[in-house]
Amino acid sequence: MIEQPKRDSFEPSESDTSKPGDLLSSINCPEDLRKIPLDRLPELCEEIREFLIKNLSQNPGHFGSSMGAVDIIVALHYVFNTPRDRIVWDVGHQAYAHKLLTGRRDAFKSLRKYEGLSGFPNPLESKYDTFISGHAGNSISAALGMAIADSKTPGEEDRKTVALIGDASIGNGLAFEGLNNASNNPNNLLIILNDNDMSIDDNVGALHRYLSDLTTSSGYNRMRMKVYNKFRKRGWIGDKGKGLVLRFNNSIKALISKQQNIFEGLNIRYFGPFDGNDVKKVVKVLTEIKDMKGPRILHLSTKKGKGFITAEENPQAWHAPGKFNPSTGEKISQKGNIAWQDVFGKTLVEIAKENDKVCGITAAMHSGTSMSAMLESFPSQTFDVGISEGHAVTFAGGLAAAGKKPFVAIYSSFLQRAYDNIIHDVAIQGLPVVFCIDRAGIVGEDGVTHHGLFDISYLRNIPGMTVASPMDAPTLRNLMKTAELTSSPFAIRYPRGKSEATSLESELKSIPIGEGRKVFTSKASSPKKAAILSVGPIGQDAIKVASRLEEENLQCDVYDMIWVKPLDTKLLDKIATEYDCLFSVEDGVVSGGFGSAVLEYLSSNRISTPLTRLGVPDEWVAHGSVERLKSDCGFDADGIYKSVKESL
Amino acid sequence: MIEQPKRDSFEPSESDTSKPGDLLSSINCPEDLRKIPLDRLPELCEEIREFLIKNLSQNPGHFGSSMGAVDIIVALHYVFNTPRDRIVWDVGHQAYAHKLLTGRRDAFKSLRKYEGLSGFPNPLESKYDTFISGHAGNSISAALGMAIADSKTPGEEDRKTVALIGDASIGNGLAFEGLNNASNNPNNLLIILNDNDMSIDDNVGALHRYLSDLTTSSGYNRMRMKVYNKFRKRGWIGDKGKGLVLRFNNSIKALISKQQNIFEGLNIRYFGPFDGNDVKKVVKVLTEIKDMKGPRILHLSTKKGKGFITAEENPQAWHAPGKFNPSTGEKISQKGNIAWQDVFGKTLVEIAKENDKVCGITAAMHSGTSMSAMLESFPSQTFDVGISEGHAVTFAGGLAAAGKKPFVAIYSSFLQRAYDNIIHDVAIQGLPVVFCIDRAGIVGEDGVTHHGLFDISYLRNIPGMTVASPMDAPTLRNLMKTAELTSSPFAIRYPRGKSEATSLESELKSIPIGEGRKVFTSKASSPKKAAILSVGPIGQDAIKVASRLEEENLQCDVYDMIWVKPLDTKLLDKIATEYDCLFSVEDGVVSGGFGSAVLEYLSSNRISTPLTRLGVPDEWVAHGSVERLKSDCGFDADGIYKSVKESL
Repeated sequence: MIEQPKRDSFEPSESDTSKPGDLLSSINCPEDLRKIPLDRLPELCEEIREFLIKNLSQNPGHFGSSMGAVDIIVALHYVFNTPRDRIVWDVGHQAYAHKLLTGRRDAFKSLRKYEGLSGFPNPLESKYDTFISGHAGNSISAALGMAIADSKTPGEEDRKTVALIGDASIGNGLAFEGLNNASNNPNNLLIILNDNDMSIDDNVGALHRYLSDLTTSSGYNRMRMKVYNKFRKRGWIGDKGKGLVLRFNNSIKALISKQQNIFEGLNIRYFGPFDGNDVKKVVKVLTEIKDMKGPRILHLSTKKGKGFITAEENPQAWHAPGKFNPSTGEKISQKGNIAWQDVFGKTLVEIAKENDKVCGITAAMHSGTSMSAMLESFPSQTFDVGISEGHAVTFAGGLAAAGKKPFVAIYSSFLQRAYDNIIHDVAIQGLPVVFCIDRAGIVGEDGVTHHGLFDISYLRNIPGMTVASPMDAPTLRNLMKTAELTSSPFAIRYPRGKSEATSLESELKSIPIGEGRKVFTSKASSPKKAAILSVGPIGQDAIKVASRLEEENLQCDVYDMIWVKPLDTKLLDKIATEYDCLFSVEDGVVSGGFGSAVLEYLSSNRISTPLTRLGVPDEWVAHGSVERLKSDCGFDADGIYKSVKESL
Repeated sequence: MIEQPKRDSFEPSESDTSKPGDLLSSINCPEDLRKIPLDRLPELCEEIREFLIKNLSQNPGHFGSSMGAVDIIVALHYVFNTPRDRIVWDVGHQAYAHKLLTGRRDAFKSLRKYEGLSGFPNPLESKYDTFISGHAGNSISAALGMAIADSKTPGEEDRKTVALIGDASIGNGLAFEGLNNASNNPNNLLIILNDNDMSIDDNVGALHRYLSDLTTSSGYNRMRMKVYNKFRKRGWIGDKGKGLVLRFNNSIKALISKQQNIFEGLNIRYFGPFDGNDVKKVVKVLTEIKDMKGPRILHLSTKKGKGFITAEENPQAWHAPGKFNPSTGEKISQKGNIAWQDVFGKTLVEIAKENDKVCGITAAMHSGTSMSAMLESFPSQTFDVGISEGHAVTFAGGLAAAGKKPFVAIYSSFLQRAYDNIIHDVAIQGLPVVFCIDRAGIVGEDGVTHHGLFDISYLRNIPGMTVASPMDAPTLRNLMKTAELTSSPFAIRYPRGKSEATSLESELKSIPIGEGRKVFTSKASSPKKAAILSVGPIGQDAIKVASRLEEENLQCDVYDMIWVKPLDTKLLDKIATEYDCLFSVEDGVVSGGFGSAVLEYLSSNRISTPLTRLGVPDEWVAHGSVERLKSDCGFDADGIYKSVKESL
């Protein structure tokens, strides 16, 4: 492959004000881009990379994959007539260059900020963003829908649709279902496989190995493309001849490359792999195949972090590096308390040390969930199954059925992918799988597709399921220990970010299932008395609120209920008698959530103490800081304070 | 392939009392089976088929696939040391012969009946049933979990696990995720692909075409197996030589068979296809490959309905034929009202006639959902995507994003597979996809894996989602019309079975979203007044109850609320003032369900009228008649009557 010039790091000039270079400055929409001569595209890519380094070093985002995808994005907008032709992103955290080329360059400094640009493509933000993205593997299915819709709409038949999917996402079951159906109905869908040889963590799975074998046999594929094009130019490939040439090619390929072509087995014409960081080459290939009929896949190899050598060398660490020094590549670390995910990771290792039945399962997120700790200590009991949340859960069911004790760590919003697996493959059989639900609640900057708001609501309706959430790190540890000793499905939700803990010295012990606790007793003596019932770390805000109210001589006690299911009904009975008004607080949707469960219990027992339910209202929550979003939803400390004070 | 003797139909003898034949009678567990000489296995298969015909003609079940799988099942228990060796079923409706061979022959007459045998394998029923089955595609993931667990458990390393999956299920995304991960960790999983060339409806997708091409090239594969075995016997295949032989074989295969082998591309050794209805052949092949190391797939071709010629000739109609005459093959039809699914199917065609943007999407269930009506009238607007519920929904999202109006018909319990697709790919963008949720509520004989109990609970927490359920056929028609004209996601749930309608003459009209209606006004004049708030056809039971109470001069009115979301809050305000006690009735889980939504509204507005919520309690519901199961759950007419009467 042709290598582009690399540089050790970005050197800011004296006048550096994060302004774009000359070419990039001239592009306010893809039409402007298409006026630039082909030869200058590498220069433009360089400018985009400089712009990304400048901006992302100060305003953190997804760095590695965005740098790697620059050339493909430039080539796509250069060759295709966007927005009439559609680009459908998969996950879409790599789409920053796309934002820069489609009128969002000046707004880019607001990336991932409250009321600023989303970190992902979003149709609400731009007509160039054709479909939502954030969860892996949906692009082929969505793009196929569009391509087939166009084929059946008079006047739209020539419109082109391109799905851009990464090599990790394509291993997802939804992507496979899309591939499997791509040739069912006539369509001209182009799938671009942006193969940077990794997911957020190392890529896994047979398809991944397969792809990298394809890449190592790229010499053959280049030859094949040449043969194909020669035949085509000479008009030798008619409808009949085409199949023959491809078949012959495949046979040769199998002989010399040791490979079977899975995609062509699925009736999708395959081209590649080519160097996806060679923008002129990508333009050339896209131009050659863009008008071909039928579903096609173009395999492009790219380098994560391309253009920033520190990132190229350590792509995993540079997936979303946070702030960094653009000159030295040094990351600006944020010290502080132990993250919730690390409380999980370290505790799991402790538990596994005492119990060799314990297994850890992650779906392509061992660093994101800190399953990495388990992977390091107990590699043979730890399984990274790739972006396959459904499989992760059913596989865990199989492990449990054969006597193991699996802990599955998945982000709340991604666990939605495994809802049926939880019900059908685990809960109906009552298998002792532990669901460690990370990123539960509002996650902040990643926004609408990533908030983990529904899990309480969609899990508490499942018979036999235990659902809990810790207020503090020692409780998370104890819940994990309790889950280890429980022989039925057990879900523990905890949020993104830091816990209150600075060390993990607490003794690990089992706690009684379904027993909440009082965590704040007010010394105030107002005539009316309020109680806040919380689940999860939000209880810490509740304590602040109660303390503030106490100063005003308003009596409000706080109960950390811990358990959404089973509810501590004994404690509820007591609370309902003692207090004049109750408040439930949760970091999730109120519709069907924890407060709703409390309400159901009170109603079933004809207890009429009024309950106010605080949490995420029945609306989509955008991106921004966690605190700001909670404030908008009315359940930050101020919001809780106001609600309680009104009732006292 | 070697054909077994066929017969036109089964001729019952004079003394026919549905007793098993001599061989089958002698088998009370697989150990008994393993004592039978190989040569007599065809006779045993014949006896099993006779037994199935006798029984299923009287007590309906899944006929076609069960008849097709007999020989594979006999061979599996003959070769493997069950239950120590594990068979993991996929869907499992084909497992009847397995039940007969594992101590459940005499209980077979209770199949699918209340407190009788389940229609599917279930670990609660037998130690030979290793994992739950019912939803397609889970077997590979679950079996992989077991195989890997064994490989890591001292003393269990030699235990064998076999996943048995059909050719329709293997196209499911979960199955692909399992295949993609099968070679990630060392294991000796054997996957048997039972390829009867169809799903419940015609099989679709590229993988399907691929499999049938493999079958037509079976001559080559037989040769390949021979070569392989010769090499193996002579000890030529060591660790190094193995790859070479396989590679050479694959190359030859690509040349002569026009085929790529997808499975070997995924690092799973492939054998087949062989005749899966030749029991001796299957025993031979299984014996040859059972001790091999590493993940393997064995492709067996079978015939749905094998041994009953009427069924062989029309496999789709004989999937689950109901009662039939075992002598003539004539089905005993059940006349009556129009089924809910047909109200849907016919109405969709009416709507599509007026609106060319309307599309129909089914996931391998065009006959089960009556999407067949749309397929017949508008084939180019109708899409059967195979058993790919997730893809079905995301694909519909793509169609909607490109201006179409998709109606997706999926059974409630299978729609759980698409929960994230509904949230992420449809609802966040507010795309106008209509979800027609068939089999919502208790489905009866298919039991725990098939009841559609969670949909209200898991859909009503999604912002912007409309959720409705019709009490009668005209309302279903009008809801569909209303959905057509609504530009946001819209879910309509309706149950299995017959509607109240005998014809579909009603005019098709849009109705106001979020407006319920009073459907029964009592003439009684008791001091206390009750109101039943229902959603769905259960409202008809509510009317019966109110009428019965009226006869006792107890005043109970009935409101068909129609809308779970948005609730008719105006009507609720009015009802809460007018009545002394309220009852919500729904055919679904009460936890987080419709009644819970009503309760949330009442609580938020500090309305204290007591509400009793009737529906499915927080327990798993087994199989049996719908009426019996509803009675157990306390929300059949008698149950509702008792609840209301107690309060009056």
